[in-house]
Parts: sequence; C-alpha cells; structure tokens
Amino acid sequence: MAIIVQKFGGSSVADAECIKRVAKRVGETYDQNNKVVVVVSAMGDTTDDLISLAKQISQDAPKREMDMLLATGEQQSVALLAMALHDLGYQSVSLTGQQAGILTDQVHSKSKILRIDSTRVEEELKLDRIVIVAGFQGVTEENEITTLGRGGSDTSAVALAAALNADICEIFTDVDGVFTADPRLVPTARKLAAISHDEMLELASLGALVLQPRSVEVAKQFDVKIHVRSSFNYHQGTIVQGVEEMNKIMEKEMVVSGVAHDLNVAKVTLFDVPDQPGTASKLFRALADERINVDMIIQSQQRNDITDISFTVTKDDLEKTKLVMEKVKDVLGTKDYSCDPDVAKISIVGAGMITNPGVAARMFEALAEHEINIEMIATSEIKVSCIIRSDLIKKAVLILHEAFELDEQ
Amino acid sequence: MAIIVQKFGGSSVADAECIKRVAKRVGETYDQNNKVVVVVSAMGDTTDDLISLAKQISQDAPKREMDMLLATGEQQSVALLAMALHDLGYQSVSLTGQQAGILTDQVHSKSKILRIDSTRVEEELKLDRIVIVAGFQGVTEENEITTLGRGGSDTSAVALAAALNADICEIFTDVDGVFTADPRLVPTARKLAAISHDEMLELASLGALVLQPRSVEVAKQFDVKIHVRSSFNYHQGTIVQGVEEMNKIMEKEMVVSGVAHDLNVAKVTLFDVPDQPGTASKLFRALADERINVDMIIQSQQRNDITDISFTVTKDDLEKTKLVMEKVKDVLGTKDYSCDPDVAKISIVGAGMITNPGVAARMFEALAEHEINIEMIATSEIKVSCIIRSDLIKKAVLILHEAFELDEQ
Repeated sequence: MAIIVQKFGGSSVADAECIKRVAKRVGETYDQNNKVVVVVSAMGDTTDDLISLAKQISQDAPKREMDMLLATGEQQSVALLAMALHDLGYQSVSLTGQQAGILTDQVHSKSKILRIDSTRVEEELKLDRIVIVAGFQGVTEENEITTLGRGGSDTSAVALAAALNADICEIFTDVDGVFTADPRLVPTARKLAAISHDEMLELASLGALVLQPRSVEVAKQFDVKIHVRSSFNYHQGTIVQGVEEMNKIMEKEMVVSGVAHDLNVAKVTLFDVPDQPGTASKLFRALADERINVDMIIQSQQRNDITDISFTVTKDDLEKTKLVMEKVKDVLGTKDYSCDPDVAKISIVGAGMITNPGVAARMFEALAEHEINIEMIATSEIKVSCIIRSDLIKKAVLILHEAFELDEQ
Repeated sequence: MAIIVQKFGGSSVADAECIKRVAKRVGETYDQNNKVVVVVSAMGDTTDDLISLAKQISQDAPKREMDMLLATGEQQSVALLAMALHDLGYQSVSLTGQQAGILTDQVHSKSKILRIDSTRVEEELKLDRIVIVAGFQGVTEENEITTLGRGGSDTSAVALAAALNADICEIFTDVDGVFTADPRLVPTARKLAAISHDEMLELASLGALVLQPRSVEVAKQFDVKIHVRSSFNYHQGTIVQGVEEMNKIMEKEMVVSGVAHDLNVAKVTLFDVPDQPGTASKLFRALADERINVDMIIQSQQRNDITDISFTVTKDDLEKTKLVMEKVKDVLGTKDYSCDPDVAKISIVGAGMITNPGVAARMFEALAEHEINIEMIATSEIKVSCIIRSDLIKKAVLILHEAFELDEQ
C-alpha cells in the first residue's frame, strides 16, 4: 500500500464546485488502494482578501498577528475539503499545521519547517482515513501559529512526504507538468517526462513558477520524488527526482533541459565608482539592510582605479533600491547611477552542462546570430543566465529553444 | 490593579472601522490601570457566511469539520483587534481558544467548557499585554478544535473571568443594559441598576436576548460579576451579580424586576387522550428523540378517563412537531390535535416573588382587567409565565409593566 501526498493550490479549491472536484480526485486515489495525505492552500483570493482587511486596520501589523489571521485561510479550505470527502462517503479528517505536528522556527510570516512530528497523521492513516493538512502553516515550540510565506504549501507537502516516507508527492497545478519553455511563448515546448531536483531548482528560481524553489530544496535534501501534474486531466506530468534516479533513465540525456525566462527584473548600474576595498560590501550591505534581494552582480574591469558596478533586483524592489542609491552614492564616491526596468533574464538549465563544455558559447552565439545583445551574464554548474532587453525576450526564448533542439518531436 | 474581562459581539467588530473603535475602548480601559482580557466574536456575518459555504458542499457536514471551519471566524477577529491595538501603541497578543487553554468536552458544535488552564493568559498579562481571546471556541484534551455553539462567546468571557478571578466581566452590547421590559415595546421601560444571577437567568431564558442563559449559569456558579453595557456610549449599564451582593443594596427591593416576552412560541394540543400510565412519557420521549425542546406542559383535569395535553415548542420546531404528532397520535389513542403558531409568552421575573405571595394573582388580574385571555400558565420560584394570543403581546407587556410599577420615575 503506497503513501501518496497530494497538494492542491488555491485555484484548485477556489469555490464549492472546485472543492468537490478535488474531493472526487482524492477519493479516486484512495480507491486505488493508497494511503492519502492531502495538503491544501487557502481558497482562491482568501489570503489576498485577508491581507487587504489587515491593511485597512494597520499599515504595520505585527507579523505574529498576520500569521494568526492568514492561517485561517487554509484552516477553512481543509475543513471544507473534509466535508466534501465525507459527502462522497470517505472517512477523512482535516488538521491544522499545529495538529499535523508541523514544527517551525519563530520567524513569523516566513517560517522554516524545523521538523514534523507525524504521530497524529500516522494514527489517522492507520484508522484508514484520508488526512487533509492545512498547507502554508505550522506552529513553534511555544505553540505560536506561523506561516511559511507565499507558496509555502508546496513546502508543507514535500516536507510531509519526507516525514511520512511517502512514495510520491503529487503537486497539482494548472499546467500539465514542467516544460522545456513557457508554452505560452513557445508553442512547440515539450513536457519533460523527468527532471532532476537540481535542474528543477534552477528552473524554479529562474521564473518557471510551477514549483516553489524552497519545496524543491526540501525534496532534494530528503530525496522526495515529486510528480508535477495537472488538476484538470489525468495525463502523466513531470517527475522531479534525485540524480541517481535520473541516471537510471536509459533514454538519451539532454544537455539542456529547458529555457526559463523572468520579466520581473530590473538592472541598476553605478558609474565610475572608485575601486577601493570595501566598496562592494558597503553597497550590498546597504541593500541587504533594506531587505532588497540582489540577483546578478557584475563589476567591470577597472580603468584608472574606477569601475562600474551593475546588479539586478526584482522590479518590485526598484523604488526601494533608488532610495538606497541616493543614500550611498556619496559614500561610495560614484558620479552617477542608472535604473533600467526594461530588461529580462533568459536562462538555459541542464544537468548535462557540467560534462558538456561549449553550452554557454552555443547560447551566446545563438543570441548573437539574431542580434540580441547580452548585457549581463551569470553562470552556475547547471545553468547560464543572460540579461537582455525585455522586448526581445519572446524571440530569445524561441531561438534558444530551437538552438538546443528542445522542440517536441 | 483590577483584572477586567471585556466581551464584544460580532456587530461590534463587523468591519475595520468597528474594530478600531473597539481597540480604542479597550485601550482606554488599559490606560485606567487595569489588566485587560478581551473576548471577541467573529466579525458580523462571518459565521453565517461560512455555514452557507459549508451547505454548498454538504448538507450533512461532520460537526468536527464544522467546528474546524467556524473557529476561523473568531481567529480572524482576534488577530485584527490585536493589530488595531498595536496600531494605537498598545502591547497586545491574540490567542485562539486552544492557546488560551479553554478546555472543552468533545461534543462538537455545542461543547461545554470543562476548565480553563489560564497559564498562558496570566503570563501575557504579567508581560503587561492586553490579551485578546477568541470566543466561542475551545480545544479538547485530544487537541481537537471545538465550538461552544451560538452565543458561546458570552460563556467564554464569563468562564475566563472566573478562571482569572477577574474583578468584573463587561459584556458590551447594542443596548444600554437590562431593562424592566423591551424598550421597543415599553417606552417607559427602566434600565435596572442591578439584578441577581437568578433573575437574569430567568429573563435570558424568557426572551431577553441581552445575555446568553449559559453564560449566566456559569456566572452564578462561579459568582462572576457581569456588567452589561453599551458599546456605543459610556453609561453605566446593569450589574448582574450574586444574591448576597444584591442583598447589600439598601434601596427598596422590587418584587418584580422585569417583564419578558417571547414571540418564538407555538402551542400544540392533543384532544381526548385516554388517561393511562405512560401516555406523557411516550409523547415527550418521541419529541425528545427528534431533539424538539418542549417548554411549558399542561395536562387538563381528566373527564371520563380522557384528558387534553397542551405544550409549547419554538415556532422553528413546529413543522418537525407535526410530523411527530402524526406518528404518535394513533399510539396514544388521541382523536385529534391542533397546532397554534399565533401565541406568545409573557413572563414576570423577580427574586422578591418568593417572599411576596399574590404576585401571580396580581398578574392574572391585570391581564383579566384588560380582557386578555390566559391559555397556559407556568411558574417557578422567581417567575410566572403565561401564554396569550400573540397579537396582544405588546398590550400585555405595557399592562404588566404598569401594574408592577416598573416605569421610569
């Protein structure tokens, strides 16, 4: 008898009809002689509605109280799903994060799961019940309610799968799986049958929104096999698994698994910065103090003891970044700086890159052939990212998808 | 330093503006050098909205899951009130029923509070925080979320006041206190300065909706002093307290404290029932099995071994009652029965009745003088209730209010 963890997001439980549909699907999995644990997000816009209600009361609500408030969204959806399953004749029980033993640290609004005490969940499974756990939430050792931050439900599901030693963690979403590129941009994009945790991690971080990066990290750490699949059909989706499992696949390994792109990028450049020790640390400490997440960083070759520094932030953080620049530019001794929101990031990801030199070169060539200028470059063992003009992003994705022969056969 | 428990109902926290207003009032109490514990209901129509959502999913939802669902309403309002207090500069913390240590039995949807482990609440008070506790909910020994049923927030507040040995439990409502009669019917109705737990219990049970009868029972048992007052002004309301405290009041004790009325009454009469042992038990067992609450019961003097039996139920239960009558009438051997929804109950309540014979007679006389026919009578040590035609209820309330000299001086 397999243990299957299934996760359904907010759009899958947006209203009563959606919840009934999810219940039917969960019931089918149970009927196939599986022990089923279901993780559910809050219904549709519930979380946003609660945030807007809180904003009407305080612009600076304590994070602890925000967690108290937001955790109710998932508590509602698990209760309703349990009712729907009961109505179909299944024994089921809903559990809050606290009841499910999801223990987190005390960092309200973006807690990390420390461990899961799965005693209660296992007891309920032994009673032959379908167990429905509120995603996105947990509890501290001090019995305080916490939330894991946006997208935390994926992490809840994977962590539960790890704790229960589940056979698979099925993440239901509105797409059929993980694709070689965004199918909205590339009509010939191909669904990947399988992908390694590492590759998925890069894709997730690079803008492929199908899985939360954090959840993939946990999956990698505890070797949880994830099945990303559609909640609207029964097609096989994409299996995300460890490298060892991947190596067992006999079919020809692709050098590049997919092309990812991200439009939520802005580029900031400081011109003529005196090249002294401590310049970079002052700059990025000032940004970190404002909780601005910096992605790519480039320092140009110095000329006459001055240099240019470029970095990227999310578009959302650009205004905050400007304020920091105004504060630090005199300290750094820079003449001027520019902020450019009209850029985008395009990346290729593939575990095969490590053993295949020349992949990056092929990427740069393909872009150059079509006169797409590369403004910044960043690489890791299994990905290459470039910053280009944002109006060229669709063209660039198509070019690279074809260049690396990712099109559907 | 006094400990004050304050309870605000759903209409007092219906939206962001209302919540801010409550926060201001709570803050004022804190500023007057008090330790403050606040009990809050769910916002406005939240509970009804959640029930209607559940109904869309299942007509027969498990009560455990309904409790899971409904408990979120209060969790939201306590978090929001904590935010509002924080915004005004007060240290505060919101607690679920579970966190506040409100331990209940396992009867989901109408749990009884077994005891309160007030450790956490007392710790927070020591830290000089305003503690906001979700009303209406608790937790079982098995860590299951329960609700106390409609109006349970009053009970939460009184029970907390008992556990904390609070100086007073203030119940904020939309009226100025407890009146000698419904001020909408009797313009000269007078606000009572004080009333005993017993009298309040009778008034609450007889249709004066200002306090839940259950909460008054707990207050009586643990001798909690309640102050029923308006959330819209700062007038002194009505103190509900023990008989001993009442006896300390030097002003002339009134024989009758108030006139209550209840329109949610229907009368059922079975005619010509053979007068045999077991008749009444068969009838009322059948009603109890359908969870129909019977209030007044009268069996007329028997004639020729047959008798009539009349009883009252709430109007809401009348249809269910008819179905039971159809089932039992042959078993009982009755010829016919009637159902009459056009009745109402009028009652006088007063601790002074015990030592003042003739109060009931005065009531019957007053009604007779104005040709109001009495159809049923029920008495207790401190109340007399009569069933009359419902269209005469307003007139009857005015008559009795005047007859017992309850008018404002």
